[in-house]
Amino acid sequence: MSNTYHRPAPTGDGLRLHLNENTAGCSPKVLEALAHLSATDVSFYPDYDVVYREAAAYLGVPEDRLLLVNGLDEGILMSTIGALLRRPDNGSRPEFIVVNPAFDMYAITARACGGAVVNVSPRGDFEFPLDGVRAAITPRTRLVFVTSPNNPTGVRVSNDAIRSVAQAVPAGAVIFVDEAYHDFCGDTALPLLDSCSNVVVGRTFAKAHGLAALRVGALLGVPDTMDPLRAVTPPYSLNVAAAVALRAAMADRERLAWYVDQVNQSRQLVYEFCTKHGFTFWVSGANFVLARVGPQAGSLVSGLAGAGIHIRDKSADPGCAGCIRVTTGIVEHTRRCLDAMEEML
Amino acid sequence: MSNTYHRPAPTGDGLRLHLNENTAGCSPKVLEALAHLSATDVSFYPDYDVVYREAAAYLGVPEDRLLLVNGLDEGILMSTIGALLRRPDNGSRPEFIVVNPAFDMYAITARACGGAVVNVSPRGDFEFPLDGVRAAITPRTRLVFVTSPNNPTGVRVSNDAIRSVAQAVPAGAVIFVDEAYHDFCGDTALPLLDSCSNVVVGRTFAKAHGLAALRVGALLGVPDTMDPLRAVTPPYSLNVAAAVALRAAMADRERLAWYVDQVNQSRQLVYEFCTKHGFTFWVSGANFVLARVGPQAGSLVSGLAGAGIHIRDKSADPGCAGCIRVTTGIVEHTRRCLDAMEEML
Repeated sequence: MSNTYHRPAPTGDGLRLHLNENTAGCSPKVLEALAHLSATDVSFYPDYDVVYREAAAYLGVPEDRLLLVNGLDEGILMSTIGALLRRPDNGSRPEFIVVNPAFDMYAITARACGGAVVNVSPRGDFEFPLDGVRAAITPRTRLVFVTSPNNPTGVRVSNDAIRSVAQAVPAGAVIFVDEAYHDFCGDTALPLLDSCSNVVVGRTFAKAHGLAALRVGALLGVPDTMDPLRAVTPPYSLNVAAAVALRAAMADRERLAWYVDQVNQSRQLVYEFCTKHGFTFWVSGANFVLARVGPQAGSLVSGLAGAGIHIRDKSADPGCAGCIRVTTGIVEHTRRCLDAMEEML
Repeated sequence: MSNTYHRPAPTGDGLRLHLNENTAGCSPKVLEALAHLSATDVSFYPDYDVVYREAAAYLGVPEDRLLLVNGLDEGILMSTIGALLRRPDNGSRPEFIVVNPAFDMYAITARACGGAVVNVSPRGDFEFPLDGVRAAITPRTRLVFVTSPNNPTGVRVSNDAIRSVAQAVPAGAVIFVDEAYHDFCGDTALPLLDSCSNVVVGRTFAKAHGLAALRVGALLGVPDTMDPLRAVTPPYSLNVAAAVALRAAMADRERLAWYVDQVNQSRQLVYEFCTKHGFTFWVSGANFVLARVGPQAGSLVSGLAGAGIHIRDKSADPGCAGCIRVTTGIVEHTRRCLDAMEEML
């Protein structure tokens, strides 16, 4: 596995169903907010009082449990640095547990920062491998990356499982629960914060709210856990465009509801398609579906790319041989993709 | 000194001459670029090919020497993490040399990341204390923060001095040359990169280009030095608004030239004011002037704030007893500030 993240090559004008982006684009209210920025809004250091108040209310947490970040990538990096600062007493390398298959950035960030990555193999059904995670925990464990719903499988992780992990790790370890796809299923580990002070929940406004390019994420946890992360996060890491966009996106609840409904319908279309063709798929809590199409995965993905439709070949991910991942956003986009696949099969 | 950075309180509608911002605001072309962002520009992950090409050409470096960052604060943090990864062999705490007086974020970031801060006291004339820095170097030195022109003194550091430091530090140490105020004097350590591979130059587009709220900075160094910093920097840390704003700001060279000329005139006005009142001041290469007004510094700053004019009391900074710092931007703003001071004295 590479030690650096390679940004996917630009796709030109094709249909982008490979990065779990919101292909409908952000709310028009976000564009309005950007167009209303003044010359001094841009040249003065931003003030976050209002956006923090609104975001805390929107997310349902007190402000002292919230840290807005420059995309969840920054949240992953700050959590990683926080883990490194809780270096084991004997000076050995802090261990980062990654439950596979997983978002590339966990292992890349942990390794780039000098941590040791401990990989947990997936179960055949992609249910959360609680026994495997428990077995991977050592006195050197400092961070456990959990993604719910998981990327790329879409499988949800129960709060009971997260609590078990939180109780099994040594003092100084944090459970990072990446809820980037929360809006598409409603699941959240936030109710665990009161009893599990070592849980940090990550959210992003990149997916359901369509702000991927503006980089808006959030870390949520109790103050004792968040304060060291707040201390390492640059004080103005959320830029003013991201801040005004976030306020506009949170306020446009109709747009969010519409998009979540589109995602629901699109997932069903993919499930039906897979059933018809006898492909294994996993019921997804996210805005994508993983499906096992077999050895033709590579040719299917490149064939679709030739037709300007970009999906993701996940064959090389642990446990994902023969699997593709399709972003399930706008129904019309999903239909175009499935029609093109139908023709190729 | 605090371990966390406290964002200054909002000032309302006053005249902000306390944060070295561009009080004229960004170029109108930047606002145009923001207003032209589309819904999918916002919802798709950004592509940096064009902005990297243009920024490298603008800064006069090959692309492999350039890393665009989410404001120079992120550049300081990434350089700090890079320094921590070059931990001394015996496991002792890496040392960060801060040449005082200095930008608060150096010590705050180094401490937040678990580093030890080694302070170098200023000389009476605020010339670069080369002997003091040399004496502070140990086998554990991993980063030396140099600011040229210095903030808050405005005093420039010669490339000979920087080269001397670069040659004196142990292997694994980096000299971070913060050139946030480069545009106001033209000085740069970039010519040193070929002979001193341990120098990293930091630039920002917050000041002269007026993009403080959009967070655009750059780190410049040879690939061997930059690659570990690139590896820890989140791959999309520059958001799309920052990227389009940067392109527009770099293209508007007339705006930059006009603003730099305003700064030149404003500095002269402050020098004349200080001379008239018998205040010591330091010739500044930046868009601010430090002046020693004596014990009345605090009352002067609070009196001006009462009149809606914000400048900075720097009395508590090392070597700066009785000093104020005034941002010298738009001539009309400088005149308003000096007129108000004149009345109070």
